[in-house]
Amino acid sequence: MNLQLDNLKKQLEFIHEIDKLKYVVRKTRLFNSDRHENDAEHSWHLAMMILVLAEHANEDIDLLKVLKMVLIHDIVEIDAGDTFLFDNNKNHTNTAEELKAAKRIFGILPEAQAQEFIGIWEEFEAFESNEAKFARSIDHLEPILQNISNGGGTWEEFNVPYEVVRKKKSPINEGSKFIWDHTEALLNESVQNGILKNEE
Amino acid sequence: MNLQLDNLKKQLEFIHEIDKLKYVVRKTRLFNSDRHENDAEHSWHLAMMILVLAEHANEDIDLLKVLKMVLIHDIVEIDAGDTFLFDNNKNHTNTAEELKAAKRIFGILPEAQAQEFIGIWEEFEAFESNEAKFARSIDHLEPILQNISNGGGTWEEFNVPYEVVRKKKSPINEGSKFIWDHTEALLNESVQNGILKNEE
Repeated sequence: MNLQLDNLKKQLEFIHEIDKLKYVVRKTRLFNSDRHENDAEHSWHLAMMILVLAEHANEDIDLLKVLKMVLIHDIVEIDAGDTFLFDNNKNHTNTAEELKAAKRIFGILPEAQAQEFIGIWEEFEAFESNEAKFARSIDHLEPILQNISNGGGTWEEFNVPYEVVRKKKSPINEGSKFIWDHTEALLNESVQNGILKNEE
Repeated sequence: MNLQLDNLKKQLEFIHEIDKLKYVVRKTRLFNSDRHENDAEHSWHLAMMILVLAEHANEDIDLLKVLKMVLIHDIVEIDAGDTFLFDNNKNHTNTAEELKAAKRIFGILPEAQAQEFIGIWEEFEAFESNEAKFARSIDHLEPILQNISNGGGTWEEFNVPYEVVRKKKSPINEGSKFIWDHTEALLNESVQNGILKNEE
């Protein structure tokens, strides 16, 4: 078969498969809403946040690579399911289940492309490159904004206190000290407003 | 006020505002599904399609710019509403209502960023640059794949015959002759399978 046509058919199969991301429901809810967000909406929103917030990154970043990271970062959840940051029973980081999912789903693509996507996903999960750190910052930031708009959101629903939120969200600082400083101000305001409990 | 903090606050307000794109419902439905797609899901899916299909573009394209185009292209619909390609009563192209929406919504951002986003949206709508042509190709392709997976989808629901689909979708050729050739094959198959009517 014509190689380009063979590639296109694999790519269209992948495009069909990843439609399932629209059914993976997150714990967080839309802004000012009771409706849960799904992973496709979340991924779009992160991509937009990357575009508008890039100037605040700690280091020079390759914007295209960061966009690729956030667009694909949750695709493994089609097989592995959403992992909630405040879930104490399941490790949030790169699990064997997620790696298997990455290989299956990205493996639908032509070989070179599959390797590229798996590599970008692994780079995101490793949280070492400047791009991964900034992408992770933004992934951590969105639910904070949603929870604030919802008068507590998952903090209230799952009874998560200020100190836990602050600690779990502190990796934002690795991607953007400036955004982290503002996030800390927002968390303090949330405590003052009574939508985030301070147990101390 | 500190200029960077002023920018960040405007950007966060914009990020909050565009959450509304998740409520703009399209006529098309998810793959193999009765559930309508929303604009945020659609925009994410287009961005993924751009990433995997870029090799088929007719001309060299600036991938980052094409991604920006598809990520923001429907944001005006928060105010102006979704326009259906096969709607004969409403012009699909850059309307005064959409321009007003672009100015209001992107206008929430810091001035330079607002101008950049309005410019990218206008470039997409003008359908002249290589990037706009490829972005438009992909925007036209997604609903075809969805309709095929749904045994006719909006073609059946709104009684749209082959010749109209073929004509309205032909701009795909401007972005990718290769993808258009394959699309024509898919449309012909759809006629043969009885999911797209040929009136001739």
